[in-house]
Amino acid sequence: MAPIYFDSLAGTPLHPEVQRVMTEYLQSTYGNPSSQHQVGDAAAEALDIAREQVAGLIGAEPREVVFCSGGTESINHAIKGVAWAQEKKGRHIITSNIEHNAVLRTLRALKLKDWRVTSLDVDHYGTVDPAAVAEAISDETVLISVMLANNEIGTIEPIREIAEIAQAHKIPMHTDAVCAAGVIPVDVKDLGVNLLSIAANQFHGPAGAGALYIKRGTPLWPLVDGGVQEHNKRAGSQNMVGIVGMGKAAELATAEMAARVAHTGQLKERMIKGLKEVIPHIIINGHPSQSLPNLVSVSVRYIEGESMMIMLDEEGICVATRSACAAGALQASHVLISIGMDFGDAQGTLVLSFNSMNTSEEVDVFLAKLPPIVERLRAMSPVWPGEAA
Amino acid sequence: MAPIYFDSLAGTPLHPEVQRVMTEYLQSTYGNPSSQHQVGDAAAEALDIAREQVAGLIGAEPREVVFCSGGTESINHAIKGVAWAQEKKGRHIITSNIEHNAVLRTLRALKLKDWRVTSLDVDHYGTVDPAAVAEAISDETVLISVMLANNEIGTIEPIREIAEIAQAHKIPMHTDAVCAAGVIPVDVKDLGVNLLSIAANQFHGPAGAGALYIKRGTPLWPLVDGGVQEHNKRAGSQNMVGIVGMGKAAELATAEMAARVAHTGQLKERMIKGLKEVIPHIIINGHPSQSLPNLVSVSVRYIEGESMMIMLDEEGICVATRSACAAGALQASHVLISIGMDFGDAQGTLVLSFNSMNTSEEVDVFLAKLPPIVERLRAMSPVWPGEAA
Repeated sequence: MAPIYFDSLAGTPLHPEVQRVMTEYLQSTYGNPSSQHQVGDAAAEALDIAREQVAGLIGAEPREVVFCSGGTESINHAIKGVAWAQEKKGRHIITSNIEHNAVLRTLRALKLKDWRVTSLDVDHYGTVDPAAVAEAISDETVLISVMLANNEIGTIEPIREIAEIAQAHKIPMHTDAVCAAGVIPVDVKDLGVNLLSIAANQFHGPAGAGALYIKRGTPLWPLVDGGVQEHNKRAGSQNMVGIVGMGKAAELATAEMAARVAHTGQLKERMIKGLKEVIPHIIINGHPSQSLPNLVSVSVRYIEGESMMIMLDEEGICVATRSACAAGALQASHVLISIGMDFGDAQGTLVLSFNSMNTSEEVDVFLAKLPPIVERLRAMSPVWPGEAA
Repeated sequence: MAPIYFDSLAGTPLHPEVQRVMTEYLQSTYGNPSSQHQVGDAAAEALDIAREQVAGLIGAEPREVVFCSGGTESINHAIKGVAWAQEKKGRHIITSNIEHNAVLRTLRALKLKDWRVTSLDVDHYGTVDPAAVAEAISDETVLISVMLANNEIGTIEPIREIAEIAQAHKIPMHTDAVCAAGVIPVDVKDLGVNLLSIAANQFHGPAGAGALYIKRGTPLWPLVDGGVQEHNKRAGSQNMVGIVGMGKAAELATAEMAARVAHTGQLKERMIKGLKEVIPHIIINGHPSQSLPNLVSVSVRYIEGESMMIMLDEEGICVATRSACAAGALQASHVLISIGMDFGDAQGTLVLSFNSMNTSEEVDVFLAKLPPIVERLRAMSPVWPGEAA
């Protein structure tokens, strides 16, 4: 039996249409789109189509879309690229406390090169206060990077408001939209950002394909120097099979957006309602309305998320305790600590993330399988106060 | 009719076995190898196998192989990574005049950040003199980067000798082996380098998949910061379809190496002999023996390579005038100028690169199609001195 997969933030299954175009592409051509002959031309045409499809997903012009190897590279490019281009102007960057490691560790690397970073607090829903951004701006500030939606608790940030402040100060604004683009409507012009990062594996495209939206005129150095690919903004022969898949996935996400939001939203609602009914002493994390429709973060008090994850896996259900990118890192989630959760409750957290292929039957199976696991773990837990809790 | 493809340096056709494993992979699984459940485990296993296969191709330990998005990223990582890690020690790098743009432009970016670069002359075969490397070393030198084989003229550099000098001075040594690995035997331990860059699309694997060999203990920062993937050396969810293809391609290249070298070497010999017979006034570039078996660089005097390339394309033959990564750049080849060729002859150059799927019949078709094209172009050329030349 196929496992129940509630870990879409770590990568969604390929859409059958995406599988089809990738398979066809890899079996039919192999050209380099930069080559000036017929084999190269076929690849160049495929690249153009994919660029239009991805631009369409986020309301960009095709020329503003630069393909790269995924969300993490896109984020590194945006942050390091602006930093390198602007360091004579200033060495100060503003971000939030709940960013993905791709942002946090990129900034950590810059801090080791004498950059100053202001990392803003969030409220208990994980929301950044735009006024706090405004307050943090100094003459030295050359970049503001705040995520569009958080990948552990799903909270959607007020990016339009923050971007307005950035624009008023003529400071480039980047948003990590990796877990938002393809999942909820995202429009770069509407948001008013200069730079926006996306990844195909969040919307039924392949891992290893991503893009950076670069608004014309944004000061930015390449992260990867070399050939003239991607309008001189990202060197290296393109991952054509992946990009073709990303393009198709973007086209499908654009067309099916409303239906996907509705479907995953129903799964989320059913899950939260069910969890509250079947498991006592839980906390649902994130903003109650301004949040991703496909993500449920639930902290099950008095036990460990890791143990639940392993026991659910034995039952054929795949979930995460946090970002896959942080799996293996032993600290508690910086996101949960930042919203004010205590260490113990943070350790008991599961991140359940859906995609358009999940079903309400799967949610019901989960809701049947989880309670005995929780009971068993609580019975063994030294901190479980008992049913009287 | 399928075109005759003599542009393998821009990317080789996928081996049918590589097509098969990539197709199977993308149709069967989608997990993130960092996820700690059964869907992730399947991906993690596939990743381990690919890492062993790639390590086997270059004589490395699997743990020393870091997957990335291709040769260009690998080179950027090696050079920028060492530079960032060592800049307090010194800001001087040694390279050669005939490197790929991935090296040249990476170094150009560093020069804009106050790095000093010594770029060494080559002789008329394109060979770097190890003694010149030794002479260029100063107390400030923190990296030596010289390519293993040149991608325009095929000359193989004395990397073992240069690496010995680097070792004696305790300076990390990087080699761009992109057009060598998978084409000729490459062994990192034998070469004695710290860092070596390879790309799958040079040996019947997909574009968008590459690797950096990192010898244990080499001082190196990540190029792409974020998650804990690739032993904390390269963040971002892996391009699993591409990596699985790269692994299989590496395994095949390892097994078929001797046969491929022999086969492409025969095509090269046949091509050079034929060219000398059918076209007067040509120059064969590169070292006569220390060179890639799969590359012929021929300068056809008095005419332009671009025109030949376009007319050959109309005849169904795909060739290049230089690196695909430099297509669209209008300058004459820096490699040909560096070996002392005059500008006019450099402009008349074709780069013919073979792979193990090419045939001697294809070489014969090329040798029949090229002479009338050359005659026609020379007849129109204002610099053609006539048959009496």
